[in-house]
Amino acid sequence: MVLVIFVMRLKKIPGALERVEASSYVIKDGKKHVGHYQSLFPKKQPIHIEIGMGKGKFIVEMAERHPEINYIGIEKYDSVLMRALEKQEEKQLPNLILMRQDAGEIDEVFDHEIDRIYLNFSDPWPKKRHAKRRLSSPDFLKEYDSIFREKKEIIMKTDNRKLFEYSILSMTEYGYHIREISLDLYQDQKEEHVQTEYEIKFHNLGYPIYWMCVDKD
Amino acid sequence: MVLVIFVMRLKKIPGALERVEASSYVIKDGKKHVGHYQSLFPKKQPIHIEIGMGKGKFIVEMAERHPEINYIGIEKYDSVLMRALEKQEEKQLPNLILMRQDAGEIDEVFDHEIDRIYLNFSDPWPKKRHAKRRLSSPDFLKEYDSIFREKKEIIMKTDNRKLFEYSILSMTEYGYHIREISLDLYQDQKEEHVQTEYEIKFHNLGYPIYWMCVDKD
Repeated sequence: MVLVIFVMRLKKIPGALERVEASSYVIKDGKKHVGHYQSLFPKKQPIHIEIGMGKGKFIVEMAERHPEINYIGIEKYDSVLMRALEKQEEKQLPNLILMRQDAGEIDEVFDHEIDRIYLNFSDPWPKKRHAKRRLSSPDFLKEYDSIFREKKEIIMKTDNRKLFEYSILSMTEYGYHIREISLDLYQDQKEEHVQTEYEIKFHNLGYPIYWMCVDKD
Repeated sequence: MVLVIFVMRLKKIPGALERVEASSYVIKDGKKHVGHYQSLFPKKQPIHIEIGMGKGKFIVEMAERHPEINYIGIEKYDSVLMRALEKQEEKQLPNLILMRQDAGEIDEVFDHEIDRIYLNFSDPWPKKRHAKRRLSSPDFLKEYDSIFREKKEIIMKTDNRKLFEYSILSMTEYGYHIREISLDLYQDQKEEHVQTEYEIKFHNLGYPIYWMCVDKD
């Protein structure tokens, strides 16, 4: 087996920080708006967020396809957030907000106002001692509890088998129900299937993409 | 993708019926012993069963490796059951019983005396209208409820992705907790890993083997 590691996030882009700072499309201090995210959108409608949106291809395409949903794309690294920002500067989608934010404080950013979380190709943190940092760890699931408005719904996709196995265990243990699951997304040809940048590269290498939708009352 | 289907069960073996009928190693009428399976073994110890043992390689090897467990291998087709019988005639393992039995009546065969069920490469019954026949369907899970002694434990392995996805959903929906899961068993190199005949063939074609251990109080 050939081991291929994409280190997409570590490339520094000169001027990224300044551009993100200067842009009105990006929320820099999410805590300022806690409890009032609906008021930042022209239409009051369900809010779906992506934690770790990277370069933003997924959330921008989702926002284009679903004007009936408000989207918030969250990313902590300026260098990739800038790529998402460039896309939004071009498209100016009214139902999309970008946010520079570390996932670790997300329960201080939102207060019972989110309807769905997307976790796409999250950092697997393979070492056991880093398990708490995985976005599907019990610590994060606990944080998410208070950001959801009513029903809690998480849609996850990853190429990382160990992360997916871990997530099945941790999410069901935490009380989530698996509503749908695919252990090879590209064989199932789901009707709607918006890809991330990372996903395209990885799928082209022939690896399966794992996908699941879980929910909890 | 090359589609390979093994039709192992349909090959008729002349004389299989007669040999199975004549053998004292095979229980033909399981209902006769309901509630008294422990008394059929020399030692009183936990009973693990395999439903659909096929040619018996798995359960015979398990019984050899684990003298501290009593095993019952269940199969409805004489033609493959005969292969298991041949193995047992050679080895005469005291902690192994073979049984000719259809899984559909298993709740009339055992009464609160089983500690673990193995489901290895069960028939996937791919058509939706046949879903009830899958050994991990809610109908079968309900039957299993009354055969377990205390804690309910099922260990499943299969190469069939759709059956495995279905089983994750149906078992967790039924109240089982997933204790361990592997979406590519041969990458994980579990310490103990007894193969079935079918598994060897299929794994050699390069397909992943899915495995999980679930339990319920």
